[in-house]
Amino acid sequence: MSYKELKRQAFEANMELQTRNLVVYTFGNVSQIDRDKGVIAIKPSGVSYDKLQPEDLVIVDLENNIVEGKMRPSSDTKTHTHLYRHFENIGGVTHTHSTYATAWAQAKTGIPCLGTTHADFVYGEIPCTAEMTAEQITRDYEEETGVQITDCYKDKDYEAAPMVLVAGHAPFTWGVDAAKSVYHAVLLEEIAKMSYLTRTLAPQGTVLSQAIADKHYYRKHGKNAYYGQN
Amino acid sequence: MSYKELKRQAFEANMELQTRNLVVYTFGNVSQIDRDKGVIAIKPSGVSYDKLQPEDLVIVDLENNIVEGKMRPSSDTKTHTHLYRHFENIGGVTHTHSTYATAWAQAKTGIPCLGTTHADFVYGEIPCTAEMTAEQITRDYEEETGVQITDCYKDKDYEAAPMVLVAGHAPFTWGVDAAKSVYHAVLLEEIAKMSYLTRTLAPQGTVLSQAIADKHYYRKHGKNAYYGQN
Amino acid sequence: MSYKELKRQAFEANMELQTRNLVVYTFGNVSQIDRDKGVIAIKPSGVSYDKLQPEDLVIVDLENNIVEGKMRPSSDTKTHTHLYRHFENIGGVTHTHSTYATAWAQAKTGIPCLGTTHADFVYGEIPCTAEMTAEQITRDYEEETGVQITDCYKDKDYEAAPMVLVAGHAPFTWGVDAAKSVYHAVLLEEIAKMSYLTRTLAPQGTVLSQAIADKHYYRKHGKNAYYGQN
Amino acid sequence: MSYKELKRQAFEANMELQTRNLVVYTFGNVSQIDRDKGVIAIKPSGVSYDKLQPEDLVIVDLENNIVEGKMRPSSDTKTHTHLYRHFENIGGVTHTHSTYATAWAQAKTGIPCLGTTHADFVYGEIPCTAEMTAEQITRDYEEETGVQITDCYKDKDYEAAPMVLVAGHAPFTWGVDAAKSVYHAVLLEEIAKMSYLTRTLAPQGTVLSQAIADKHYYRKHGKNAYYGQN
Repeated sequence: MSYKELKRQAFEANMELQTRNLVVYTFGNVSQIDRDKGVIAIKPSGVSYDKLQPEDLVIVDLENNIVEGKMRPSSDTKTHTHLYRHFENIGGVTHTHSTYATAWAQAKTGIPCLGTTHADFVYGEIPCTAEMTAEQITRDYEEETGVQITDCYKDKDYEAAPMVLVAGHAPFTWGVDAAKSVYHAVLLEEIAKMSYLTRTLAPQGTVLSQAIADKHYYRKHGKNAYYGQN
Repeated sequence: MSYKELKRQAFEANMELQTRNLVVYTFGNVSQIDRDKGVIAIKPSGVSYDKLQPEDLVIVDLENNIVEGKMRPSSDTKTHTHLYRHFENIGGVTHTHSTYATAWAQAKTGIPCLGTTHADFVYGEIPCTAEMTAEQITRDYEEETGVQITDCYKDKDYEAAPMVLVAGHAPFTWGVDAAKSVYHAVLLEEIAKMSYLTRTLAPQGTVLSQAIADKHYYRKHGKNAYYGQN
Repeated sequence: MSYKELKRQAFEANMELQTRNLVVYTFGNVSQIDRDKGVIAIKPSGVSYDKLQPEDLVIVDLENNIVEGKMRPSSDTKTHTHLYRHFENIGGVTHTHSTYATAWAQAKTGIPCLGTTHADFVYGEIPCTAEMTAEQITRDYEEETGVQITDCYKDKDYEAAPMVLVAGHAPFTWGVDAAKSVYHAVLLEEIAKMSYLTRTLAPQGTVLSQAIADKHYYRKHGKNAYYGQN
Repeated sequence: MSYKELKRQAFEANMELQTRNLVVYTFGNVSQIDRDKGVIAIKPSGVSYDKLQPEDLVIVDLENNIVEGKMRPSSDTKTHTHLYRHFENIGGVTHTHSTYATAWAQAKTGIPCLGTTHADFVYGEIPCTAEMTAEQITRDYEEETGVQITDCYKDKDYEAAPMVLVAGHAPFTWGVDAAKSVYHAVLLEEIAKMSYLTRTLAPQGTVLSQAIADKHYYRKHGKNAYYGQN
């Protein structure tokens, strides 16, 4: 894929954040990787969606060197590249401060599986990372944000739970490409809202049974899936 | 009614789900029945509303055989046909994951009648089904979702309470045709939101008196109704 | 004022309910009075806003006789005329089931004055009526809804608190004309939302001091007002 | 800067309040100062945004004398000029009754720093003033509202926390110009909403660690900032 095409796809995914009402002002950023070339296209730092152009996207390699582009890449770039280095099957990463997902992240708690809307897209809890320690902050903050996330997946399948809450911060989501990572950001916000409502309505409520959660997840994922047209 | 006309009416009702902001992406599905022909038109599985065309709807008989259509019908088809077989006066069925109604379903509790907005359209509580057992799941999941619902109506009038919450899942609604089932889905979401707000504002609040509930329901339904122009 | 002009003004006010997102489907109704002629123009019963035309409004006298119009007037007509007969300075009445105001009505509690947004427009609590008794319901329900409201104002100034919550039902608002009654319905919904948020955030919170409430109310109302251009 | 240009900039900022859905009807007002001339341009009192024109803005000096303009300036003018006199680096002031920020003001509590969205823009808590005393009200109410605010900043940096909640009332925000003060009003409303959700979801939740708060604030502010393109 040419850099131009990679930037175009990442650009479209970034603009989708605004269309889906997940961002205000310059909040949020999306990237997409070309695994063959070992580079990503990512949103420039602090540029508003109304002014963003495809050619503004910055091409960065996985060691965070700028390969092409006149603008400074997103300040969260090192978190993105950390995820691409550790989650080898992902093709796109999205970061937002979407309202309900961020509220859960600020509550420093994962989102339990309370219903089939969640189970349709995520296997098990949507995890919340541990809080970053003061010592981690003194190192490389954005890199360490990536470490917070990948530490969370030591015993968890990143493809089955393609979204995470960074404690005290906000969500990151990923997918096979940039568009799919945005799709997961939209789903996360909707699941976070439903779960907020369920928890405030019935604070002692029980989670979905594992049997139903399995049924819903596997009717959409894996070799026995029967949802959709493929 | 021709298959073409049946599909057109079911298509319009499906599109209304998006117009009314009850769905994201491919969530939700609406069907309509032709009782004379013994077939329904239903949304194909996993197709987004932006791309849906009237001719994409699938004609299925009440034993879930595809009669006409190139696409796979909604994965919830067996729930729809179960409802048509058991609720003989209904002409349309809608399934959504609308936010507030789903929050109640995830809380696994019916919506008590807290006010006249509810009483105007539904007689008594909006029921929530029992949770599906692990044993039921091993059988035919979507058929058993229908069983969950009809079990709920053994001692309850499905025409007087044309909406139900499936525990841990989401709502189903029905009506004399597809359009009316969507109308009930919209009303349910509004009632679910009002009821959520009432319950979180006044957790110990009392329900509406039966006398007022009766008055409101019967001013819109039955032979002594005097609301509207008919 | 001609019936035609009276209907036009009432029509515009009815349409404003939809523009301001206070209604779904056929919910809600607005009327306006011509005190000289002793008649009101009111929305017909059960007609959707998308189809409503100025000539559909019904002219009714204060004893609820239809004076002009082909359609049946709103089923709440007797509540409107009751208010016009008892609150002699009002020129318009609005009834909605707007979401947050209805939630408070369903909680069967008045809205205390929690801030200056409330104090700017309403002097003191926004009252909630007593619940209607079973005996009242057996009489004339819509007339008795008016009685519930006017009973609430025996020791309260209806011009200083031009909005009320009918317990278990929903709000009524009024003003010098139909447009002003809709204006009060919009303000009520916003105040109800803010108050809901305040109460759920700080359930033990205190109300606004009477001194500030007085200051805000009287900077907009009465002979010493200094807000606005008049 | 000419009065005309000053009014144009203040006008644009006032209109942005409506575009960003922070106001209903005539709520809210924005001003901008020309420090060289010692005057501000401010919204006229009680004029709706739909009718507001750039030439309607009123030019007022810092002792609240009208210098140019046919209309009465905002009833909150003395609060604005008080802020300009005490906070010497600010160029614009915004007052709204935005829903979530007002709910916190009505709860009479500052917004603790619960996450990095807050830390990105505000250093430390968003303060809530003390309640105005009855004695203060008898003096000059709008001037005293300014006193409430500046009293809050005796030991607090007004540039690092450019937004405040006036107890029982609503927020004021400021910035280097009118546009920036509106920008802060938008951010405040979003932070207030996220914080409301976090607090109602996890009432006992802990605030963000000071180390992360520092990191986020200083990655956007001060000489070591590295966010954005400058």
